[in-house]
Amino acid sequence: MKVTDYPLTDLLAAFRSPAPTPGGGSAAALAGAIGASLLAMVAGLPKPRAATTEDLARLAADGAACVALGERLTALIDRDTEAYRLVVAGFRMPKGSDDEKAVRGERVQEALRMATETPLDVMRACADAISRAAAIAAFGNPHAASDVQVGLELLGAGLRGARLNVEVNLESITDGQFVAAMRDEATRLTLAGEGGIQAADRAAAEPPDPASRIPAGEVT
Amino acid sequence: MKVTDYPLTDLLAAFRSPAPTPGGGSAAALAGAIGASLLAMVAGLPKPRAATTEDLARLAADGAACVALGERLTALIDRDTEAYRLVVAGFRMPKGSDDEKAVRGERVQEALRMATETPLDVMRACADAISRAAAIAAFGNPHAASDVQVGLELLGAGLRGARLNVEVNLESITDGQFVAAMRDEATRLTLAGEGGIQAADRAAAEPPDPASRIPAGEVT
Repeated sequence: MKVTDYPLTDLLAAFRSPAPTPGGGSAAALAGAIGASLLAMVAGLPKPRAATTEDLARLAADGAACVALGERLTALIDRDTEAYRLVVAGFRMPKGSDDEKAVRGERVQEALRMATETPLDVMRACADAISRAAAIAAFGNPHAASDVQVGLELLGAGLRGARLNVEVNLESITDGQFVAAMRDEATRLTLAGEGGIQAADRAAAEPPDPASRIPAGEVT
Repeated sequence: MKVTDYPLTDLLAAFRSPAPTPGGGSAAALAGAIGASLLAMVAGLPKPRAATTEDLARLAADGAACVALGERLTALIDRDTEAYRLVVAGFRMPKGSDDEKAVRGERVQEALRMATETPLDVMRACADAISRAAAIAAFGNPHAASDVQVGLELLGAGLRGARLNVEVNLESITDGQFVAAMRDEATRLTLAGEGGIQAADRAAAEPPDPASRIPAGEVT
């Protein structure tokens, strides 16, 4: 049974249990999934602030993107749990002979790369959803402004939480080129995401202006 | 059916749907519940850093507290959805006569007070769990340091997200004394929570020192 099939109360009990999965990586993906879902909800509410056909189309497009990103982040909850299981399985392989050691080492490195790429995908999806928040704050139903802000809090937690998981896995990876490339992208996504959160806060604080045009996100 | 009985995928679909519940208030409680659960997991892991009976007892006590706080925050997910439904039901009451207007006004104010107290309870529980994080970071299994940090990200999102919901409801409450008291406590809990996050970050960054003593949380 996949983690995402659990009833919520069972899922939270699974996070609480001392079993190593689900852990922080799945929790970061879940935070992002909730955040993207809140943005999608606001984009779909009646009585949007958008008044022109163009602004309404922009709101609908960003809402649809957040629906898809929420679904992608949901799938990443399970993928992170699976990636961590593969790392543990690799470390449990026999290491009696030199051959066994070599096979085990390769399997562990492969699993660690997947365990790094998964939270990096979480970062990509969170940064993408964040880049949609300014338009949703500007054009969505103004009474749901606090839902946009809560969504951003969760997407920020998902972005930063996923980065912690990227970093912790990179510490054990021996391929220096892979490590440098992953670290560069994690830094870039963090900067884009934190900048997007500030842009959305500004869009939410500004008085409604039907003529305003929010630049499209250029994150991913 | 309560929101917390939903399978996770259905719950996320409910957040995404344009129906007003579940909304940001329940999402903030859920963020806190995941965060408290991660701290509880780390406190229960084998091979803790704590070496003395006293430190082990402290770790166990903080872990047990986080289990209870995680369960309390889970219950608050449903309570927030219920509180919001009562506000909407109040606004839909008849307002043809002066009597009807008076009854409706009282019902709305009562529902708004519950809709304010619920996220304030979320803030209390998040701040309490945060106050346990420094000891769990110092005495728990050091390999789970990133899980503590992801837990703190989620508890911070829960704390700030709940405060947004306190503030948005206070705007419509006419009882000035209630508004001032709620606002004061929300500010106090924010300061305590943000301070607790910094203290936990310091505890996680410090090298292990079996003689260290983390002061007990004094938040709630």
